[in-house]
Amino acid sequence: MTGNRVPIANHIDQDLLDSNPTILDHVNDAFDLDYDAITLPFTKPTWKTRWQRYCVSNENDVNKGRARASYIAGKSENVVQDRQTAKEAEVWRLTRVYDKNEVNVSKLDECESIIAFASDWLELDSPDEGIRFDSEMALKQEVAYASYLSIHTLILPAPKNRKHVADYARSVMAALDSTSYLQLSVMIPVSDPAELEQSGVSPALSEFKGDPSSTWEVWDAIRTLCDYSPRLGLALDLGQPLPPPCALKRWSSEPTRQIIIPANAFVGNAKGYPVLSKSCQEFIKEQIKTLPTIVLTETYEGIHKSGGSKAYVQYLRYMEKLSNDSATSVEQFASGYMDWLQAPLQPLLDNLDSSTYEIFEKDPIKYQKYEQATYLALLDKEPNSLTRIAVVGAGRGPLVQGAINAVEAAAEGRRIHIMAVEKNPNACVTLQGRMDEWNESKIASVELVFGDMRIIELEDEQKNDILISELLGSFGDNELSPECLDGAMRLLKPYGVSIPSYYTSYIAPLSSTKLYNEVMHMGDAKNAEMPYVVMFQAVNILSGMDKESNRKAVQQCWSYKHPSKYEFVMDRNGNPMTNYHNTRAAHLTFTIPYAGVLHGLAGYFEAHLYGNVWLSTHPERYDKEMLSWFPIYFPINTGVYLPTNSEVDVHLWRLTDNKKVWFEWSVEVFVKADEKRIKINQSKLHNHDAKYNRIEL
Amino acid sequence: MTGNRVPIANHIDQDLLDSNPTILDHVNDAFDLDYDAITLPFTKPTWKTRWQRYCVSNENDVNKGRARASYIAGKSENVVQDRQTAKEAEVWRLTRVYDKNEVNVSKLDECESIIAFASDWLELDSPDEGIRFDSEMALKQEVAYASYLSIHTLILPAPKNRKHVADYARSVMAALDSTSYLQLSVMIPVSDPAELEQSGVSPALSEFKGDPSSTWEVWDAIRTLCDYSPRLGLALDLGQPLPPPCALKRWSSEPTRQIIIPANAFVGNAKGYPVLSKSCQEFIKEQIKTLPTIVLTETYEGIHKSGGSKAYVQYLRYMEKLSNDSATSVEQFASGYMDWLQAPLQPLLDNLDSSTYEIFEKDPIKYQKYEQATYLALLDKEPNSLTRIAVVGAGRGPLVQGAINAVEAAAEGRRIHIMAVEKNPNACVTLQGRMDEWNESKIASVELVFGDMRIIELEDEQKNDILISELLGSFGDNELSPECLDGAMRLLKPYGVSIPSYYTSYIAPLSSTKLYNEVMHMGDAKNAEMPYVVMFQAVNILSGMDKESNRKAVQQCWSYKHPSKYEFVMDRNGNPMTNYHNTRAAHLTFTIPYAGVLHGLAGYFEAHLYGNVWLSTHPERYDKEMLSWFPIYFPINTGVYLPTNSEVDVHLWRLTDNKKVWFEWSVEVFVKADEKRIKINQSKLHNHDAKYNRIEL
Repeated sequence: MTGNRVPIANHIDQDLLDSNPTILDHVNDAFDLDYDAITLPFTKPTWKTRWQRYCVSNENDVNKGRARASYIAGKSENVVQDRQTAKEAEVWRLTRVYDKNEVNVSKLDECESIIAFASDWLELDSPDEGIRFDSEMALKQEVAYASYLSIHTLILPAPKNRKHVADYARSVMAALDSTSYLQLSVMIPVSDPAELEQSGVSPALSEFKGDPSSTWEVWDAIRTLCDYSPRLGLALDLGQPLPPPCALKRWSSEPTRQIIIPANAFVGNAKGYPVLSKSCQEFIKEQIKTLPTIVLTETYEGIHKSGGSKAYVQYLRYMEKLSNDSATSVEQFASGYMDWLQAPLQPLLDNLDSSTYEIFEKDPIKYQKYEQATYLALLDKEPNSLTRIAVVGAGRGPLVQGAINAVEAAAEGRRIHIMAVEKNPNACVTLQGRMDEWNESKIASVELVFGDMRIIELEDEQKNDILISELLGSFGDNELSPECLDGAMRLLKPYGVSIPSYYTSYIAPLSSTKLYNEVMHMGDAKNAEMPYVVMFQAVNILSGMDKESNRKAVQQCWSYKHPSKYEFVMDRNGNPMTNYHNTRAAHLTFTIPYAGVLHGLAGYFEAHLYGNVWLSTHPERYDKEMLSWFPIYFPINTGVYLPTNSEVDVHLWRLTDNKKVWFEWSVEVFVKADEKRIKINQSKLHNHDAKYNRIEL
Repeated sequence: MTGNRVPIANHIDQDLLDSNPTILDHVNDAFDLDYDAITLPFTKPTWKTRWQRYCVSNENDVNKGRARASYIAGKSENVVQDRQTAKEAEVWRLTRVYDKNEVNVSKLDECESIIAFASDWLELDSPDEGIRFDSEMALKQEVAYASYLSIHTLILPAPKNRKHVADYARSVMAALDSTSYLQLSVMIPVSDPAELEQSGVSPALSEFKGDPSSTWEVWDAIRTLCDYSPRLGLALDLGQPLPPPCALKRWSSEPTRQIIIPANAFVGNAKGYPVLSKSCQEFIKEQIKTLPTIVLTETYEGIHKSGGSKAYVQYLRYMEKLSNDSATSVEQFASGYMDWLQAPLQPLLDNLDSSTYEIFEKDPIKYQKYEQATYLALLDKEPNSLTRIAVVGAGRGPLVQGAINAVEAAAEGRRIHIMAVEKNPNACVTLQGRMDEWNESKIASVELVFGDMRIIELEDEQKNDILISELLGSFGDNELSPECLDGAMRLLKPYGVSIPSYYTSYIAPLSSTKLYNEVMHMGDAKNAEMPYVVMFQAVNILSGMDKESNRKAVQQCWSYKHPSKYEFVMDRNGNPMTNYHNTRAAHLTFTIPYAGVLHGLAGYFEAHLYGNVWLSTHPERYDKEMLSWFPIYFPINTGVYLPTNSEVDVHLWRLTDNKKVWFEWSVEVFVKADEKRIKINQSKLHNHDAKYNRIEL
């Protein structure tokens, strides 16, 4: 097991702190129990009492359940405070100083392993304007004090009032602006139980209609108002029943920094030990891949019969082990590269280095498939015949080796001659070194040709029966396979075979705060104008299968076939005179079953090699062990809100000017109302003027 | 008459050009007829013939009405071209050269006074991908040739196919990117007659239900995809019937560079002369304020009995005169400042210079109203009494003079003592110069006090009955009137009167490509984070009166009253200890009857001076002759699309930290579907971290 350790924190409540106010004792106890940190309330009830005396009158409004702010200098209509209190309140507003007995933490050395909960009685979204403003002031005081103590994260109480979510968000933004390093997390319940009940869904049911989205929608409103501040995170509270998977998966693309699991979210197993429900296990197993801090609360309350207070953390450590053990080859291979934006390779422009080849050659699937495809192609040749094969882009030789293996398996007197074409002079040295070994074979001969497959000259008798290439990028055609193979068709006899014979690009709308933030906070608007290669993790595909219109969640953009069924006008070198036949345009409509924010497009490809042999990164049918391709990500420069049951039209173009190739893209959003399709939003056209991210021919 | 000359162009069609191909002759003829320019088709039919031979096969698809592109090197399925033609087509795609006889213009000196129409047969939005790509290539050829000739504007044929509007826009953007100076105008019909008919509207009817918006919506999609390129304009084609005013007013906020009026859009008057319909006259009169080029076409066709071909331009010159003559004082005063973004004044921080006072004192209305209010306030005093008046912010003395005039009018033995308070030491010199003149009055005495109204000290017996101030900004409170008057209340006796006694801020959602472009193309994202003072012209208020919910188009944010009805905690100088009581929050919902793009908020104010005397910039009841205040503009950093019948929630806050005052704002958009209110979009929070645009206390 080589996985990561998930940080887990134990929550120390006010009662425990009152019984032993020495924070370091609690930290050390937690370490002993295999925790990594503790969480605690930042302020004491004494502070609440003082704040309320200043800012809330309990006298007149007892019957309203919640008192209104009322101070002489204030905004409220009922002035009931005495002058002395009013003056103290104004002095507080000016100075904002705690008494030592109003806070639970006061020493710098206590703060290293703690996460603090801000006062849970703050009402940043109170209907009362006075209470809102005074709550914001109290929050700023906590934030300033937390910064002073170098506390790294403050968790804010959950918003309660959808109508005043903009007020809540504004206060959060003001708090963020008032410090430089402090992280703020907004506590958000994973569901609204009232909403689940209304939808007729108990958490046990898997059938579900409708979209229990209000808690996610509140979170989305806050982070959008806060302009995706990288210091704003989400503390997901699992104290409520989990919503059905369709709604749950939405959280996977959010910046979840803490997952709060109260002890009563565990169920007792047969022996009375606390365990999580199946769906909760699945959810946690996915979530912990991004290493949020798990906050366990109420562990001392004795809610479960067996295992005691440490049973919860033990169970989580067990889940961590399960998650790490079940990681796929790709996940292990890509560990550290998850959600990491890479500029796509330009192997045509740049010569790859040997270590890059080394990584690609480690793929346990790709070369097997090529070998299998070559084998099937050779089986379709007569026994006792010679087949001429061109391997274009031979690299360090894996496809050459695969072809030799294939002819040996095909047997029955079949022989091959391989023309290994490579334009990278450095890789040619490696190829030369393998020639002796290859030419030991009785049924295969290998000839090395240095040069660009579009330029090398050859005689008619040198033409080949089979052309093997591995020029595909994450989006299929994005490393210029179509253009290179156009030029390499000269190496093939009429009716010759190309492996791959055709390939198709696929696309789907995605949501990912992580990717969006990476692109938007790189400091240059141009960064939103290029596609990236990314191993997706905190990413959610927003589109769904739409049975009515037969629309798929992941849709086909376009294909390239080799040899082409069209005849081109050729130049004197036998290459197409222009590249305009390789332009493509796609206009696709996706159905969005549950509200989300579009941050870009996910691109995949599928290639037919030969017979029944395919390569695929399509999310519904990719080979989990194949390492060679991560998906591609086309960013959109503004988060585009997609309501439940909306439709998004994606436009994507592959363009060329004969010197370069590039993609442009845009989206439009529609909802259906009164049987009509109404446009509600659209993006600009992306990448129309990007100068540096075109792919050189 | 001091108005501007509206540029008018005459269209020279191909027949006229064929009869006399010397462009300069046509230009000179146009000048003689009081035109400023000519328009003409840029290419000849010979070019169309060649392009079609290359790119379109007429053989197989004659019956489909429109042929498909089909070339050997191409993308189409039916390959019918001969090899020679296919080769010529590919050579064209590579080189793109005109024959001299394929273009109407070829000399630099011909181009100064012409606007060119791009080939009207280009199908940038054809359903056929091949035709689209080849049309784009032909457009780029025209654009390159136009740039070579320094032609400043090319008018593009109207888009025809909503489904492929993204393809159209992409080609336009590519054309813009391929040049640096050339302006492109997209021709858009003012309405879709089919749509008008469907809505049961003939242009004569003023009653109208529904929203004939498709031509506007197409334009909006194109310019949004093109990211509001400042080189992209609109050529509005009045060849179709005008839609009803509600839909028509939408065009007023768009960058209309040309208005195309075919002769047949004129009707014959009693004598057979061509005139425009009443609604068309109104529309043109508004539009020509922004000086688009009026393009008259078909003037030689003899469509009207009387007046000949020059009757059309004569009529337009007559309308130009009417428009200039009817300009209001404000329009004349603000000429040159229309849609010009100004940073709001900070008179508290900066001392105004004498010329600024001079401009403000020219207002023919404001000082009359102050005088009238003071007069009414004095009438409410006993005859034969002395009234003490403080004029705070006396400036160069207009309010002092007004008070003296008022007491002379009030008569009946009333006398006044004026304490003129001014913090600007330079203005105090001017005030000193007027003292002798003022003190000549038998019933008024004036005392000059140099200092900040919040700081100057005074004895109880110096306190005043009336406090007169003119501290209001474009949004009422935005020049810190509330804070200054809080401090000046010390100068007033208990139960004294403030003129103004209260003021209210108003807001409405607006659309304006002009203002949005000004803000977005100033090069610094911070520019979208501050309010501006602007005399609106190419601005459209998007909200409407909603009778069902009783929502108004322009809504009230908040008010300030002086003296306040609240008692504040005071510091030892008699000023409020903190400024937090002057914070405000507004959450307003507007109904949007017709689709539009929100580019920001328009702010106004209304102040009650005394009795029935008001100052107002509220668009439904402002005094057209009052010059002192332009509205305020709060920008939104992305154009937010508002569908027909949507609702927009506006959040606006006035905030303070005791040192400064600033505004923050945001919007959320909703539509109603299935009786539910569904969120479809929102903005970020604006101005939360802007450091330089807060108003210093």
